[in-house]
Amino acid sequence: MYPESLQDLIESFKLLPGVGEKTAERMAFYMLNIDLEKAEFFSKSIINAKEKLHKCPICSNITDQDICNICASDARDKKTLCIVEDCRNISLFEKTGSFKGMYHVLDNLISPLDGINPEDIGIEKLVKRVENSKFDEIIIAVKPSIEGETTSLYIKKILEGLNIKVTRIASGVPLGADIEYIDSMTLERALMDRKEIE
Amino acid sequence: MYPESLQDLIESFKLLPGVGEKTAERMAFYMLNIDLEKAEFFSKSIINAKEKLHKCPICSNITDQDICNICASDARDKKTLCIVEDCRNISLFEKTGSFKGMYHVLDNLISPLDGINPEDIGIEKLVKRVENSKFDEIIIAVKPSIEGETTSLYIKKILEGLNIKVTRIASGVPLGADIEYIDSMTLERALMDRKEIE
Repeated sequence: MYPESLQDLIESFKLLPGVGEKTAERMAFYMLNIDLEKAEFFSKSIINAKEKLHKCPICSNITDQDICNICASDARDKKTLCIVEDCRNISLFEKTGSFKGMYHVLDNLISPLDGINPEDIGIEKLVKRVENSKFDEIIIAVKPSIEGETTSLYIKKILEGLNIKVTRIASGVPLGADIEYIDSMTLERALMDRKEIE
Repeated sequence: MYPESLQDLIESFKLLPGVGEKTAERMAFYMLNIDLEKAEFFSKSIINAKEKLHKCPICSNITDQDICNICASDARDKKTLCIVEDCRNISLFEKTGSFKGMYHVLDNLISPLDGINPEDIGIEKLVKRVENSKFDEIIIAVKPSIEGETTSLYIKKILEGLNIKVTRIASGVPLGADIEYIDSMTLERALMDRKEIE
């Protein structure tokens, strides 16, 4: 029904996560009305990103340099490592401003049901890095799901014997949340992990 | 925080309607993981669409030909014209399979609050076309909102004297809908426009 070049553009948008036929159509028609300059910027930015970006060989963060700017920085605390499940999470921790250490991005969380086994999370790269570094503490900052907990326990076990403190970020009631809307698993954890008021 | 080429890609996705920072980030990271081939197709389809697509000079439908395939077709009923507010609506009417006439796409619906006055809907192009054609009936198929009704009445008034039947598509309760969920304006219209059962 639509001209081929329009159909191609709709198909392109349908490649994106969460974009179905209707949304892709809306996006395609929207593109027809924006400045040619913006469309060219859009088109180029896709190719540019594919050509320039790759994983940092040290921490697996996304970078356009040989090694990422966090690994390359002299201003970071090289004694603390924060393990995340997705490089997008790095920017979230950075925004808090309260962590100045290094990061390491896992390839996956362990999830046998999805066919993701311990050997698929990038553990070798992590172990090699930890063995060749002098970390005092490794903070595991993955989500507190079954996959996250399994992965945390596995990493803790693998790093045993290296004499490094392994911690995980706290779970509990989010700040400002109403207790009545919190699920019982989270409340149970919040009770278990209660802290003395000082 | 992100490398420049990644930031550019995120900014590109933020150009799209309904896409905010988080969604744009998700789309950008998704793009990094798809095949280079698909990314190149995406990139090219944007430029291709911008270069090849334009409005049909007769009906304002989107086309990559000199005139669109509906205007160029010999199989259509040249006596009936259906006026729509958006070229995307053409494919919806085509899918019903019950209309074989011609289409005309308005530039806008009249909406004084948004600064869209009668002279902004492309009325001249429409009038010129109607004057140079031999339509028996003009069906106005715009949405039954205040803007749609205003536009319909305006077109009816402008075409007065040309001795052409001007109709609008029916409004009422959608098929399969529960009466209890229909707003009272729609029910009022459905009552007003009731039809004798034959």
